[in-house]
Amino acid sequence: MRIDIITVVPDLLKSPFEASIMKRSIEKGLVEVHLHNLRDYTNDNYRQVDDYQFGGGAGMVMMIAPIDKCISKLKSEREYDEVIYMTPDGETLNQGIANQLSLKGNLIILCGHYKGVDQRVRDHFVTKEISVGDYVLSGGELGALILCDAIIRLIPGVLGNETSALTDSFQDDLLAPPIYTRPAEYKGWKVPEILTSGNFPKIEAWREEQAYQRTKERRPDLLND
Amino acid sequence: MRIDIITVVPDLLKSPFEASIMKRSIEKGLVEVHLHNLRDYTNDNYRQVDDYQFGGGAGMVMMIAPIDKCISKLKSEREYDEVIYMTPDGETLNQGIANQLSLKGNLIILCGHYKGVDQRVRDHFVTKEISVGDYVLSGGELGALILCDAIIRLIPGVLGNETSALTDSFQDDLLAPPIYTRPAEYKGWKVPEILTSGNFPKIEAWREEQAYQRTKERRPDLLND
Repeated sequence: MRIDIITVVPDLLKSPFEASIMKRSIEKGLVEVHLHNLRDYTNDNYRQVDDYQFGGGAGMVMMIAPIDKCISKLKSEREYDEVIYMTPDGETLNQGIANQLSLKGNLIILCGHYKGVDQRVRDHFVTKEISVGDYVLSGGELGALILCDAIIRLIPGVLGNETSALTDSFQDDLLAPPIYTRPAEYKGWKVPEILTSGNFPKIEAWREEQAYQRTKERRPDLLND
Repeated sequence: MRIDIITVVPDLLKSPFEASIMKRSIEKGLVEVHLHNLRDYTNDNYRQVDDYQFGGGAGMVMMIAPIDKCISKLKSEREYDEVIYMTPDGETLNQGIANQLSLKGNLIILCGHYKGVDQRVRDHFVTKEISVGDYVLSGGELGALILCDAIIRLIPGVLGNETSALTDSFQDDLLAPPIYTRPAEYKGWKVPEILTSGNFPKIEAWREEQAYQRTKERRPDLLND
């Protein structure tokens, strides 16, 4: 998989790709991530990427020309499955979308900044709009990181233990059950006895029950779908 | 505001705090962000922070002792309003929660990694559990970044233009209307005439209508609340 991220603040994106699972998946050659500074696609000395809104109003808007130039250059080099725009009014990311995107070959992710991009970018270049949640961020960059992490960890070979991702929350529409590790007692707080019983069928049944109870209590909406 | 983030991969978190709005808000003295490496709170030579699950199963669990030690040290130095644990089964972050948290003084954010933290950490130390969305990430760090950005940009003085945040999506339960900037025509794609009319009352009415239509089309759930 290859992911191209277009942004006005490429420096913001660096450290997460240089640490943890995203770093290792890049080192293993399972994914390539390329950051593109939108200012490199401007024609003027000021490297201008944004301008005032037509019709007035607070906040700057990202201009269409540099974005067109960057996306067109990338598309001339290879085929892309999706040009994704990170925006709070996009389709809300969930595990199903992450699963689907993890099967793709090449993705472009466009990060909005300031008030967002000129609507014509969305109308003519973007194929998919994704929101990471119902809150506003100062730019699409953190959303792009979330999307990359959610996708990349699903690529076979990325996680050390492949079964680990399958027991995560949401993969079976249930939240994960409580988990415990040593010591069995800490300041008087004990691990549930069943977990140290060695009775694995009973442990499995307890976990399923706990997962169901936790989901019912915290996220009944997941059970109704 | 002061935010203390507890993590096993502090390097992952660095660049977003050294760029863009989060950087400027720290430089302006409007917020302090402190990263704590959980491994600094271990007692053994291996600096062990995780261990196998009781009852078996894939994935490691973060141990209670180092987390206790780190949180207890911070709490001995000052009062905290919340100890927040980033977890996919927490309360889903929305703009209302971000607004509330932006009014707090001191926050601890605990990032889970691997399969998550020992349940006793959640039972005895955590006061608030937050999820950034219905998807699984390789750790709580990116969620912590999202939470910090969503909160910090709401602190008065952080955004250059204070009115800008108020016209964002979600602040009035409507998605933002489409926005445009120069040029008025690009490759034959024109800006809606109304926006270049100079008739500001009409522009305002058009924007309200567009915001409502976009919300109705994309997120009818926001209108029903």
